[in-house]
Amino acid sequence: MKFIIKSTFKKARAGILSTKYGEIETPVFMPVGTLGTVKGISKEILHKYNFDIILANTYHLMLRPGMDIIKKFGGLNKFMSWNKSILTDSGGFQIMSLGKNVKVDDEGVTFRSHLDGTSIRLNAEKSVEVQKYLDATITMTFDECVPHPYSYSDTEISLNRSSKWTKRSLNAYKKKRGYGIFAIVQGGMHKELRRKSTEELSTMDFDGYAVGGLAVGEGQELMSDITNYCTSNLPFDKPRYLMGVGYPSDILRAVKNGIDMFDCVLPTRSGRTGLAFTTNGMVKIKNAKYSKDNSPLDYDCSCNICTNYSKAYLHHLVKSSEILGSVFLTQHNLFYYKKIMKKIRKGIIEGNLDNLKL
Amino acid sequence: MKFIIKSTFKKARAGILSTKYGEIETPVFMPVGTLGTVKGISKEILHKYNFDIILANTYHLMLRPGMDIIKKFGGLNKFMSWNKSILTDSGGFQIMSLGKNVKVDDEGVTFRSHLDGTSIRLNAEKSVEVQKYLDATITMTFDECVPHPYSYSDTEISLNRSSKWTKRSLNAYKKKRGYGIFAIVQGGMHKELRRKSTEELSTMDFDGYAVGGLAVGEGQELMSDITNYCTSNLPFDKPRYLMGVGYPSDILRAVKNGIDMFDCVLPTRSGRTGLAFTTNGMVKIKNAKYSKDNSPLDYDCSCNICTNYSKAYLHHLVKSSEILGSVFLTQHNLFYYKKIMKKIRKGIIEGNLDNLKL
Repeated sequence: MKFIIKSTFKKARAGILSTKYGEIETPVFMPVGTLGTVKGISKEILHKYNFDIILANTYHLMLRPGMDIIKKFGGLNKFMSWNKSILTDSGGFQIMSLGKNVKVDDEGVTFRSHLDGTSIRLNAEKSVEVQKYLDATITMTFDECVPHPYSYSDTEISLNRSSKWTKRSLNAYKKKRGYGIFAIVQGGMHKELRRKSTEELSTMDFDGYAVGGLAVGEGQELMSDITNYCTSNLPFDKPRYLMGVGYPSDILRAVKNGIDMFDCVLPTRSGRTGLAFTTNGMVKIKNAKYSKDNSPLDYDCSCNICTNYSKAYLHHLVKSSEILGSVFLTQHNLFYYKKIMKKIRKGIIEGNLDNLKL
Repeated sequence: MKFIIKSTFKKARAGILSTKYGEIETPVFMPVGTLGTVKGISKEILHKYNFDIILANTYHLMLRPGMDIIKKFGGLNKFMSWNKSILTDSGGFQIMSLGKNVKVDDEGVTFRSHLDGTSIRLNAEKSVEVQKYLDATITMTFDECVPHPYSYSDTEISLNRSSKWTKRSLNAYKKKRGYGIFAIVQGGMHKELRRKSTEELSTMDFDGYAVGGLAVGEGQELMSDITNYCTSNLPFDKPRYLMGVGYPSDILRAVKNGIDMFDCVLPTRSGRTGLAFTTNGMVKIKNAKYSKDNSPLDYDCSCNICTNYSKAYLHHLVKSSEILGSVFLTQHNLFYYKKIMKKIRKGIIEGNLDNLKL
């Protein structure tokens, strides 16, 4: 895996991440394909919109379809018929979100499947192994996430544990041409711990660095401050990924803070709940005022949905719980996200990112 | 509206139905787009698969989005952004299927909306008016359907009522170039009444004739027998439409009995419930035996789904209630139906329809 920074504007960078599947222009937004499918979106649309990398969730795929099947197929790409890059999370974050059904100890995590209650054990080695079976283009290290707010001393204990797991993840990982492994900076909202984390991880041979433990309710200012602090201490020449972020304005701010990669369920989940991102703000399409509205979702959008359908028709589809209501809004939202990423990249290259309003 | 028979094989006909939107090759299968959307299927797919006509349901569209909105948009084609033909039913059949909430009298029908319980009146004039607002390419006359089994005398009473409504429908209809109106043959399972119905309707100026009141549980033999009896008494040079049919084998048999047009929810509804039509019979994709099956749904199918995805992946999508599970199976099923219609047409033109096995 190779990363080249083509252009910078202040802390923001426009780069090319090259994997075995080809080139990915950064800053990049990765649509979430939890179960090996970006909900409602065919690969034809992902290709048409030039999405070159998606995210998939290790925890969910471990349970369904299960690793036996993924192994048999030779990885997730082949299973889902996707010939571009996939980044997989380590499973840790989602498992730790299960609440009561999770026990974390120094060695790993024991949890119960949300599907059938089966007890399952996951640790650094197992997570990397599962990601190997998934044939993840980018593997994430296994770590612990802490809630917000969380005390300095508790965060420090957790960070020490995460550090050990991160090293074990790296040890368990076998380097392969065109593939990579990313470490995750933790340390909660405590800069000293974030510094400790970045310094430690920077000395190790990772292909990229994620900033984890943000977008947990800390607010936009603090998120931006911590992100900026972390990137200042990370190697310049490696890609940086802000996990689980976010709204277009969050993304723009994070790019200005030196982030290159993003993932978030917002465009897809919003699409399925009748919410559209537009240049004039969010449109809640079920709102009665759209029932006779002949205008497109967004006049400033050239997507297939905006060129073909009125708000009234989309309102009708969503109100009637028609499948295409979810599909069309998700398509539009992904197109919108792709468009803002293009604008951001252009802003960096042309040196006018500060003029960009989202 | 023009209908030209290009070729015949025994009673079967291969024709061209020309409407304001272009030519439709017959025999034709019309996908069902109840609410102004073929569930889960974008128009790009309908275009790609060469579906030149779809069916929409007057009753459902009256309630949602309602005629005010359809009028404002200038018809259903514009509302749903569909630039090909639409056949609308009269609303009668679906209303009469509502059961207790329906009162039929000699003049029309009073029913309660299944959505909000509002009392609504529909009769021949109103049905034709609604279909005019929908800008239906093909309008269906308003009639009464009878259950099966149903006595001769009760069926006769109903047929007399239907005959009056049919005449009133025709009187209320204004002919327009490129559009048409079809009458519906009724008479239950009683040939004498079917003969009476066909004779009466044949003298009137309709653009086509439907055979109604079949596929109500009478069995394949009786359906075939009644269909054959009806077509023998209908004008040769007008298109004939067997409503609500059916399985591929039903369609083949009906074509041999002289039918040109079909609609049915089978390919679409089956797709949404995990059932696929294949050359080797129905595949219930949720079946555990498919969980590791690397083969396509149908080796003998060149659709986008069969060329890209394994049964195991489709099994995974459907088991996980993923949107694309429904979408992909529906796509495949519509492709399958289109393919059999092409084979049937080819069989007629090449004179070897009798060798075709479905």
